[in-house]
Amino acid sequence: MKKVIVISAHPDDEVLGAGGTILKHSAQGDQVFWLITTNITEPDGFTVEMVSERQEEIKEVEKILGIQKTYLLNYPTMKLDSRIVNEMVPRISEIFKEVEPEIIYCLNRSDAHSDHRYTFDAVMSCTKSFRYSYLKQVLLYECISETEFAPALPEKVFLPNYYVDISNFIEKKLEAMNIYASELGEHPFPRSERNIKALATYRGAIAGVEYAEAFQLIKFIDKE
Amino acid sequence: MKKVIVISAHPDDEVLGAGGTILKHSAQGDQVFWLITTNITEPDGFTVEMVSERQEEIKEVEKILGIQKTYLLNYPTMKLDSRIVNEMVPRISEIFKEVEPEIIYCLNRSDAHSDHRYTFDAVMSCTKSFRYSYLKQVLLYECISETEFAPALPEKVFLPNYYVDISNFIEKKLEAMNIYASELGEHPFPRSERNIKALATYRGAIAGVEYAEAFQLIKFIDKE
Amino acid sequence: MKKVIVISAHPDDEVLGAGGTILKHSAQGDQVFWLITTNITEPDGFTVEMVSERQEEIKEVEKILGIQKTYLLNYPTMKLDSRIVNEMVPRISEIFKEVEPEIIYCLNRSDAHSDHRYTFDAVMSCTKSFRYSYLKQVLLYECISETEFAPALPEKVFLPNYYVDISNFIEKKLEAMNIYASELGEHPFPRSERNIKALATYRGAIAGVEYAEAFQLIKFIDKE
Amino acid sequence: MKKVIVISAHPDDEVLGAGGTILKHSAQGDQVFWLITTNITEPDGFTVEMVSERQEEIKEVEKILGIQKTYLLNYPTMKLDSRIVNEMVPRISEIFKEVEPEIIYCLNRSDAHSDHRYTFDAVMSCTKSFRYSYLKQVLLYECISETEFAPALPEKVFLPNYYVDISNFIEKKLEAMNIYASELGEHPFPRSERNIKALATYRGAIAGVEYAEAFQLIKFIDKE
Amino acid sequence: MKKVIVISAHPDDEVLGAGGTILKHSAQGDQVFWLITTNITEPDGFTVEMVSERQEEIKEVEKILGIQKTYLLNYPTMKLDSRIVNEMVPRISEIFKEVEPEIIYCLNRSDAHSDHRYTFDAVMSCTKSFRYSYLKQVLLYECISETEFAPALPEKVFLPNYYVDISNFIEKKLEAMNIYASELGEHPFPRSERNIKALATYRGAIAGVEYAEAFQLIKFIDKE
Amino acid sequence: MKKVIVISAHPDDEVLGAGGTILKHSAQGDQVFWLITTNITEPDGFTVEMVSERQEEIKEVEKILGIQKTYLLNYPTMKLDSRIVNEMVPRISEIFKEVEPEIIYCLNRSDAHSDHRYTFDAVMSCTKSFRYSYLKQVLLYECISETEFAPALPEKVFLPNYYVDISNFIEKKLEAMNIYASELGEHPFPRSERNIKALATYRGAIAGVEYAEAFQLIKFIDKE
Repeated sequence: MKKVIVISAHPDDEVLGAGGTILKHSAQGDQVFWLITTNITEPDGFTVEMVSERQEEIKEVEKILGIQKTYLLNYPTMKLDSRIVNEMVPRISEIFKEVEPEIIYCLNRSDAHSDHRYTFDAVMSCTKSFRYSYLKQVLLYECISETEFAPALPEKVFLPNYYVDISNFIEKKLEAMNIYASELGEHPFPRSERNIKALATYRGAIAGVEYAEAFQLIKFIDKE
Repeated sequence: MKKVIVISAHPDDEVLGAGGTILKHSAQGDQVFWLITTNITEPDGFTVEMVSERQEEIKEVEKILGIQKTYLLNYPTMKLDSRIVNEMVPRISEIFKEVEPEIIYCLNRSDAHSDHRYTFDAVMSCTKSFRYSYLKQVLLYECISETEFAPALPEKVFLPNYYVDISNFIEKKLEAMNIYASELGEHPFPRSERNIKALATYRGAIAGVEYAEAFQLIKFIDKE
Repeated sequence: MKKVIVISAHPDDEVLGAGGTILKHSAQGDQVFWLITTNITEPDGFTVEMVSERQEEIKEVEKILGIQKTYLLNYPTMKLDSRIVNEMVPRISEIFKEVEPEIIYCLNRSDAHSDHRYTFDAVMSCTKSFRYSYLKQVLLYECISETEFAPALPEKVFLPNYYVDISNFIEKKLEAMNIYASELGEHPFPRSERNIKALATYRGAIAGVEYAEAFQLIKFIDKE
Repeated sequence: MKKVIVISAHPDDEVLGAGGTILKHSAQGDQVFWLITTNITEPDGFTVEMVSERQEEIKEVEKILGIQKTYLLNYPTMKLDSRIVNEMVPRISEIFKEVEPEIIYCLNRSDAHSDHRYTFDAVMSCTKSFRYSYLKQVLLYECISETEFAPALPEKVFLPNYYVDISNFIEKKLEAMNIYASELGEHPFPRSERNIKALATYRGAIAGVEYAEAFQLIKFIDKE
Repeated sequence: MKKVIVISAHPDDEVLGAGGTILKHSAQGDQVFWLITTNITEPDGFTVEMVSERQEEIKEVEKILGIQKTYLLNYPTMKLDSRIVNEMVPRISEIFKEVEPEIIYCLNRSDAHSDHRYTFDAVMSCTKSFRYSYLKQVLLYECISETEFAPALPEKVFLPNYYVDISNFIEKKLEAMNIYASELGEHPFPRSERNIKALATYRGAIAGVEYAEAFQLIKFIDKE
Repeated sequence: MKKVIVISAHPDDEVLGAGGTILKHSAQGDQVFWLITTNITEPDGFTVEMVSERQEEIKEVEKILGIQKTYLLNYPTMKLDSRIVNEMVPRISEIFKEVEPEIIYCLNRSDAHSDHRYTFDAVMSCTKSFRYSYLKQVLLYECISETEFAPALPEKVFLPNYYVDISNFIEKKLEAMNIYASELGEHPFPRSERNIKALATYRGAIAGVEYAEAFQLIKFIDKE
């Protein structure tokens, strides 16, 4: 049994990027935790309905993915910045000390959305082996509609080196994604069933399986 | 009317990587030339049938793609090396001087197959603006089963920055690919219809179209 | 007729980096828009004269370059930060929705001045193809006295891959630059006529023309 | 006689990263200045004792290293952000104008601690040759427990190209480090005597000397 | 039980770079294979004694490391080139098909010695998932006296992201290294006991263990 | 007095890339050596006149630059390859052991001409500190018509971090270049007086001097 935490800036990141892998963890009896750094609120211009619907979606996704516990930092969406990162670090540190995760699935550092990049920065501040000795793996996931929309610059390239066979979990991943109905659209809108399957097919062919999710591993410690 | 040349190490590279874009050029009345650096021969262990079938395939693909003229360098396949690059450079230079291409579609420099990489090296030696003044664009294409199998190293990343809408040409691209029947397989074998469509779908969503081919532009000169 | 927008953090960036290219667009009948993210103000320690002179300079440059319309975000100069980026994004988004630019000439992401880098970040948030479907090209320009003063680190390299012949526009570019008299100096001060011509000569030799401006293309979508 | 300035975000950075090299400068009769961007304060939760002890440590380290003068910016530790960078720039600029340093030893831009990264950004804004004409060298140092804990991403790699033989100064470097007793621990805690010596040994073998410190040179101007 | 293969260009590479990790595999009951691409011969100027001693050393190291079987390609040392790579590929392919390794420990692609780099190229040609479906991990190891002597260029950086605790195997690793007596020297000669321990200490502090070996993981496939 | 060696693949590289800096060394009383890896010969299609003229040019340039001794490896021009690199390494090693250079000015590893790249590879094999203990600096120079014509790929970027004021030597550098009359042309041909001066002006403005040459320092060892 492993303890695993997946990080979202906005709910749906985790399904798009690591949904199949999380489902696989749950199926293997691992404990999966979820940390979401932002939320939508009325003061930020979202209606009561949208806010409450979002909280409902989170609950439903928790159930499908088999999430043990969800941590909400509740920063206003689209407003993370470098000052807030300094605020987030001790809070994320507390959560990691409570969860003691062995594996972190984190947002990619060069995603188009700045909330993703600041969340990455904050999480990275909580990965030093001498403070978080239980930590064995840190992986960045690719989040459709964000990772591939990073500016085409060499320092922002997502470079996958880690593939997970999710052939048995693709349908359930799509089911989870459908909970976030308002985030989905029709191809060529990037967050579509068709595009999610296309990417999983392409990544699958690299790994020699039907469907795969791809990650960029940035830390692996073999301690046994 | 533009003059365009596409470079293959092995026939099928050009269809996999730039087939839709070539078809689009032909449809727009551009003149397309084809340069293939290697060939299969009996001394290298291929049967008479395989050798003659390959030459047939080249002819059929020429027809579908609307190739004006094909240049065969006929080096033995899987044997390009640094000495042969030195031999190839003056031959490619001659061809460019004959064709006077405005656009080059070249193999990516970090593809898994060394024939691709040595072909790239030889072609690059023939792109200096002061020797080839008609040259306005150099693009690297991504070749399924080679580009995504480069070792996951930062200096080998294919970094697409140029997308071509091939929605109207995807069917004809697949038709062209089917001529190379022996090179195709079933998913998760990477050279499959399903995977070709998956990649074109994923690239399409980035470009906002149904199907796209992606390139890495490394030279563009606006001279008009 | 194309619609084009050029982004400055401080007036003069656009002339230094893309002045010749903008003049060429205007000469070809394209519509050119200008977006400036900062401004100088009295509360920030500039005199009434400096402030009003700057607004005059902007008007004169508009005329020379043939700018259709200028958008001023008026953030205090030398004070852009990550919080302000979040504020700028919706404002830039509105402007893009009004202008519907096909081509963006943007500041380079690694320029020495942080105002340039934060402006880049804000602009990039407004380039997703599924939100800004008219967008076909995104180019970063090199701004003398900023781009070449980035720290010599691989992730900050300006890597030109796109050259525009500005031989017919170099004199008018220098004329436009002379409007910003207070920003110019004598060589080896980087913003000098001599240095501007030297760089245009060097870039010209790469492109095979007398004078050129160099850009880093990061997005090109061929949709026709 | 050269004038040299070493930059710390937190006292002990300078000893860990450049202690031997500073001692060598002092031994050679060079003038060494020290700039520390943050400090600990009671409002930030540190006890009176910790705060006064830290100021004592700074004084003792000054003596051992032979520091001419120390500049304290006194920003709260662990709270530097992009807005504070804008504040720091003119203050650092003033200090550089007073000191007129020939060589800057600066924190690495990709260290794990964000205070290091923001300090780097602020210092870099004060290195343009046309404003700071006395400046001849800019070097980034590697700070044990920060530099090697940067996320394993290509754009964050510390790439040493400059080695200083500190064989005659290793003992005094360790003596200086021992002043910061609270910052040291037992191996495998990274800030240990054993690890400091291990790294200096490994860097020494690259340089062909017993002990060395490694730097990434990002600017060198030979003006004589 | 896993099947593992370690690649050397010259005997001693495997001990320097992955000796502790191999010992750990053997201790865990995994099957370890060894592939050496070059050898020393009399025609190349080595004495009979040197040649036979080297073969003896290989046998002794096999015993200590618990090697199942060793494959010798016997190319002359210091003479690998691009033509020989083409020759090596089918031979390495045959060996992989016989061994069916799950994990490959390969030389780093940017090591100072060209034999290392050509060996890397040849091995990479045998890692495609659709040809070698049993392959789950490809790791590059760092080889003291070669990896850290690569030219300091960004495209040649060894970027460790995978650490193995070898605290229980460091003594036996040194014992194995001592078999290659002629390759060892005194510090600051890089291949010394002192430097091997220094590097393992430094890598250990990153991983939070006493001694570690560091690798750059370039492929991981989770297929279960 | 320092001993310095400059490496050319073809005579004129050294003047284009480092002519001013070499002149400065000579003026400061340093001993400068010159190593040229290729030559032109009659069997390779050059006329007797061209061959003898080239040897004359070398002699004249030696005189102007103040070269102590020139080493000719005499490999046929445009034919260096990976096998020849293996041959060159021991020959270059012998020369370095004879000269005992403190500083190496070497061709850039990504220049367009493959002779430049293979020369770089061979030279790099002779820079290990434990074999060449007198070596303190390794610098790559930028060679007009080759360095700026490398394909626009991140792994091939020339990244200058080291500038030498050559204001007092620019005229003599041009005089030296004029000896190679057949290699010079009119702008926009890249090897023109106008372009050489333009680049030196642009590099000068970065360094704060009238004319400068730029280098990429890849090794510096401070041993005193």
